[in-house]
Amino acid sequence: MARTVNLGVIGTGRIGRVHIDNLLRRLSGVRVGAVADVLRDSAREVGERYGIPAVSEDPREVLDRGDLDAVLICSSTDTHADLIVAAAAAGKHIFCEKPISRELSATDRALRAVEAAGVKLQMGFNRRFDPSHGRVKEHIVNGDIGTLHTLRLASRDPAPPPMEYLRVSGGIFMDMTIHDFDMARYLAGGEVVEVFAAGGVRVDPAIAELGDLDTAVTVLRFDSGVLATIDNCRKSVYGYDQRIEAFGSEGMAVSENVASNSARLYGGDRVSADLPPYFFLERYTDSYVREMEAFVASVRDDTEPPATGADARAALLLAFAARRSADENRPVRVSEVG
Amino acid sequence: MARTVNLGVIGTGRIGRVHIDNLLRRLSGVRVGAVADVLRDSAREVGERYGIPAVSEDPREVLDRGDLDAVLICSSTDTHADLIVAAAAAGKHIFCEKPISRELSATDRALRAVEAAGVKLQMGFNRRFDPSHGRVKEHIVNGDIGTLHTLRLASRDPAPPPMEYLRVSGGIFMDMTIHDFDMARYLAGGEVVEVFAAGGVRVDPAIAELGDLDTAVTVLRFDSGVLATIDNCRKSVYGYDQRIEAFGSEGMAVSENVASNSARLYGGDRVSADLPPYFFLERYTDSYVREMEAFVASVRDDTEPPATGADARAALLLAFAARRSADENRPVRVSEVG
Amino acid sequence: MARTVNLGVIGTGRIGRVHIDNLLRRLSGVRVGAVADVLRDSAREVGERYGIPAVSEDPREVLDRGDLDAVLICSSTDTHADLIVAAAAAGKHIFCEKPISRELSATDRALRAVEAAGVKLQMGFNRRFDPSHGRVKEHIVNGDIGTLHTLRLASRDPAPPPMEYLRVSGGIFMDMTIHDFDMARYLAGGEVVEVFAAGGVRVDPAIAELGDLDTAVTVLRFDSGVLATIDNCRKSVYGYDQRIEAFGSEGMAVSENVASNSARLYGGDRVSADLPPYFFLERYTDSYVREMEAFVASVRDDTEPPATGADARAALLLAFAARRSADENRPVRVSEVG
Amino acid sequence: MARTVNLGVIGTGRIGRVHIDNLLRRLSGVRVGAVADVLRDSAREVGERYGIPAVSEDPREVLDRGDLDAVLICSSTDTHADLIVAAAAAGKHIFCEKPISRELSATDRALRAVEAAGVKLQMGFNRRFDPSHGRVKEHIVNGDIGTLHTLRLASRDPAPPPMEYLRVSGGIFMDMTIHDFDMARYLAGGEVVEVFAAGGVRVDPAIAELGDLDTAVTVLRFDSGVLATIDNCRKSVYGYDQRIEAFGSEGMAVSENVASNSARLYGGDRVSADLPPYFFLERYTDSYVREMEAFVASVRDDTEPPATGADARAALLLAFAARRSADENRPVRVSEVG
Repeated sequence: MARTVNLGVIGTGRIGRVHIDNLLRRLSGVRVGAVADVLRDSAREVGERYGIPAVSEDPREVLDRGDLDAVLICSSTDTHADLIVAAAAAGKHIFCEKPISRELSATDRALRAVEAAGVKLQMGFNRRFDPSHGRVKEHIVNGDIGTLHTLRLASRDPAPPPMEYLRVSGGIFMDMTIHDFDMARYLAGGEVVEVFAAGGVRVDPAIAELGDLDTAVTVLRFDSGVLATIDNCRKSVYGYDQRIEAFGSEGMAVSENVASNSARLYGGDRVSADLPPYFFLERYTDSYVREMEAFVASVRDDTEPPATGADARAALLLAFAARRSADENRPVRVSEVG
Repeated sequence: MARTVNLGVIGTGRIGRVHIDNLLRRLSGVRVGAVADVLRDSAREVGERYGIPAVSEDPREVLDRGDLDAVLICSSTDTHADLIVAAAAAGKHIFCEKPISRELSATDRALRAVEAAGVKLQMGFNRRFDPSHGRVKEHIVNGDIGTLHTLRLASRDPAPPPMEYLRVSGGIFMDMTIHDFDMARYLAGGEVVEVFAAGGVRVDPAIAELGDLDTAVTVLRFDSGVLATIDNCRKSVYGYDQRIEAFGSEGMAVSENVASNSARLYGGDRVSADLPPYFFLERYTDSYVREMEAFVASVRDDTEPPATGADARAALLLAFAARRSADENRPVRVSEVG
Repeated sequence: MARTVNLGVIGTGRIGRVHIDNLLRRLSGVRVGAVADVLRDSAREVGERYGIPAVSEDPREVLDRGDLDAVLICSSTDTHADLIVAAAAAGKHIFCEKPISRELSATDRALRAVEAAGVKLQMGFNRRFDPSHGRVKEHIVNGDIGTLHTLRLASRDPAPPPMEYLRVSGGIFMDMTIHDFDMARYLAGGEVVEVFAAGGVRVDPAIAELGDLDTAVTVLRFDSGVLATIDNCRKSVYGYDQRIEAFGSEGMAVSENVASNSARLYGGDRVSADLPPYFFLERYTDSYVREMEAFVASVRDDTEPPATGADARAALLLAFAARRSADENRPVRVSEVG
Repeated sequence: MARTVNLGVIGTGRIGRVHIDNLLRRLSGVRVGAVADVLRDSAREVGERYGIPAVSEDPREVLDRGDLDAVLICSSTDTHADLIVAAAAAGKHIFCEKPISRELSATDRALRAVEAAGVKLQMGFNRRFDPSHGRVKEHIVNGDIGTLHTLRLASRDPAPPPMEYLRVSGGIFMDMTIHDFDMARYLAGGEVVEVFAAGGVRVDPAIAELGDLDTAVTVLRFDSGVLATIDNCRKSVYGYDQRIEAFGSEGMAVSENVASNSARLYGGDRVSADLPPYFFLERYTDSYVREMEAFVASVRDDTEPPATGADARAALLLAFAARRSADENRPVRVSEVG
């Protein structure tokens, strides 16, 4: 039987709890030996619920433990880079929610620390693990659609986040499109050389006051000649919209929105169905489980994790390029921003 | 916070483990205090995996415990009736996999014991808890399709069970159609007065040697005048086929097969999708969770469980009537068999 | 180039006009040389619109013409048998709307006349020519679903016909289910040996006063062991419901309701689409064209038409058997009624 | 009854014949009094088939006839502008296949002639008349999706046209995307202010030698702030791909690819369906009929046609801007090119 992987979790907010629940209730051979959160009550509540032996408000107490193979960094974005550096120094493998940092210098500092320590770093690009998107990837890899020509991604949230979050979010490209940048890179299997982005404020004028956009279209040109278009909006009344289309010389593979259920109603005026799942926690349930499975397998089997720090850096550069493109209304080469 | 419900489980085979896993990993406020299985190693393995304090090969040891509110009976069918009687005598609420018994007398004996003891009995008609089928029920209850006229159910297994199981299964109507009988009753909300069934052996001649059928069509006539048709087969190469259609004066509600994922492939000759989930464990994942939630809520809140012993008895009578109808090639009134 | 086929049309009501329009506007190499209708104004109007040289109120004037290869009999059902006899005597090939007659004796008289004269008789079972149903037939013939086990047909009209029509319609099985009987025979490729039918009056009590049913379920048992279930209702608020399902050892082929258009609306509460086509004239547009193509090809190439008088007779027997089954509440062997 | 509209047709190639057939066989109250084609045999063949009295190789003979209300210009693109000028001078209303010209000056000359003569000019943007795309337009107009934010169009041909055609086609934006430019303008209901286009040669290197592209992505920014993305390719192995998506503040309306039929096959490894219609003649059958209905109604009722010369001019400017954008790799303001 496979050996038990021992994990610590830093940050017991919403996403931290999702991971802990999946690790302990959906996976096998995993132990969560310590949790920390600056909100001590949050850490304690989680610790009690899951019977986690060590609970702290100080992440150092997690990092210093000798019995842990790896840590999950699920705290706020501004702490990620420093915690990666500290975890690497402590010789722990790392799973970190995206992004590493909204700054390139901090990102690079963290990546250097990871490399120097020789630990693994998996980034929380959970959509890669979605079964439907995964089938699109498989169809590409299997050659079912021949040579890839274009990608089309639609990615819309049901509602904008609160203003206090938007203020520190880094803007739509860094906060929202970054998932699509990663997905496009994942599917196309190459590097983006140029970005064109256009957008506007259609949902809430307060977003304009932040200098941000709430609706955007982005075109990516890959070194292979593949073109990807991404369509984002912060508000979709019919719920979370997550669609992918990969078009190639021998066919097309698409990942449609998943259905909440398979019921249909034929009435006197319309044929109808329930709306798709409301947001990421409902839509990507399986993805989060499979993401953890991948990380645990990577630690246990000493293999490369499927979404690395280099992927996070690449997506960050695309966010920079997209932002500059939208600001200056011109295609921006990725080499200009990194 | 809601009080913890303490459960014992008798039978740690496939379905028993599904329930234990759901109870402990997907529900809150539940404790499994004891398990028993005639195969002591099976019980011990489960006990160790889930940290269950009491493990035994004797179901009596579960029933005799004073700390349990209820028991799940997941052992082989021939033990159900006696265990229900014993559990009722021990004052335990009961969840029992269907059927209570393949005999009416034993069924009635168990139901009398339950009634005498004043305990709850929920039967394992898991499909009632499926979200898609549940939407059909809701559309009926909400009046979205007006007065119900007809039901159409298709219910096909991916492959027949092993011969040793078929030999003691009670036949296709008691083993397989019984779920559809319950679903039809659940949706139509009344009682069946007459059954017509026709069938044949199309899949495996060995099934004919058992005097059983592997393909069958059943027509139910309800007291309300609603007509239901059920289409069964023991083998469907494209996987488990589970569809429901409720047609009424103001519309139709259907529950289609669920998709394994939302990916589609457009190739040079066909547009295609992956097959639906293979069998009940894959198809009815959520149903099993919701079934346990319903049972636990019924115990905790002292409410009537949503699928009772009376439902099991009614479905059993329909299985008898269907069998007689197929044997004698005539519509059989339910009053003839019970 | 193929020689022109010269046709006469008897009956210029709704369906006669559909055929004339399709013959002259959608087909090539066809001439309509004469039309007749007991309502002389109807015949004259059609004659003028399409430039048909001979117009009459007397069908004899059509049958007596020497320049016609064939006639279409689109007059009221009670005239079909006599007109077939007369047309056969006149040496004309015949297309006749179903049924030949509601009586077996008149049907047989017509079939004998056709056989004696050596002319072709194609019956108006238009659904055989529907592209979607046709694909199901092709999948069966190609072996895509292996050995056929069961058929499921749903066939519902948007609204009952007027009472004056219902009074002479011959009842639901002869008027409505007869199309499904033909479709089941067409798909299964064998003969029905036994029929069980059950029904009720759910739509309009006035239908009960006629001794008729408006909702019915029919089970057919074929000599091959194939079982077919047919679900009919005279009223479906969401429009004409026409679905077919063929299940076999290697798969299932289905013909779903066709969509009025491919537009979908994602709103704040539902995902929805327009209703399917309202009734047969909208639903079976292509079928009527292809039906005429088949008839013209049969005449031109001297081949057997694809839906013969024998098919009409067989479907009639099934209607008799279904009616008797519903009346006597027992399975009825087809040999009992013919 | 409505008066008969008398039409002449210049150009009896493929699209001219489609229109003539629809005018005479699918519409009422229309007469085609004259046809001309530089290939006299083509004109004569069409004239004979449809009984058209006047046949010529000289378009002037059509334009000079006093009995015609309007003419259809279906000859090669290089003749459109001159024929529009001549037809306008002759006082004929005009339906012209797109584009008027590949030159702006000739386009403007034609439009001035039309305006001076006070005749109507309807351009052959047939997709506006597609029932599915039309439902998207209706949903927008009805407010079903609130304020429009973004459009997404996918438009792919099954195979590139012959090289000799490509050589004179004006390039992908003028020949292919122009339909999407018109559709985007039609749906968004405003004017485009800026265009960004990116593309490549993925299908056939010979297209690169022409200085053309075969795969392209275009982003349109409207004066209203609406953003539209268009995804084009000259080759799609699964057939003609024609999809539209309109996303707004209150929902999304989409027009999916239409199905060739409603049959589905469930096999042992995949669930599949036939490919969509192969190309525009199969896909847009109904659109061509409705386009002619709209033109005839416009002539008969003296109303503005639904796709005008101004629309053609606007789409032409977008093609210029897209081409320049792709060439210079920068967003191009429409005001730069017209």
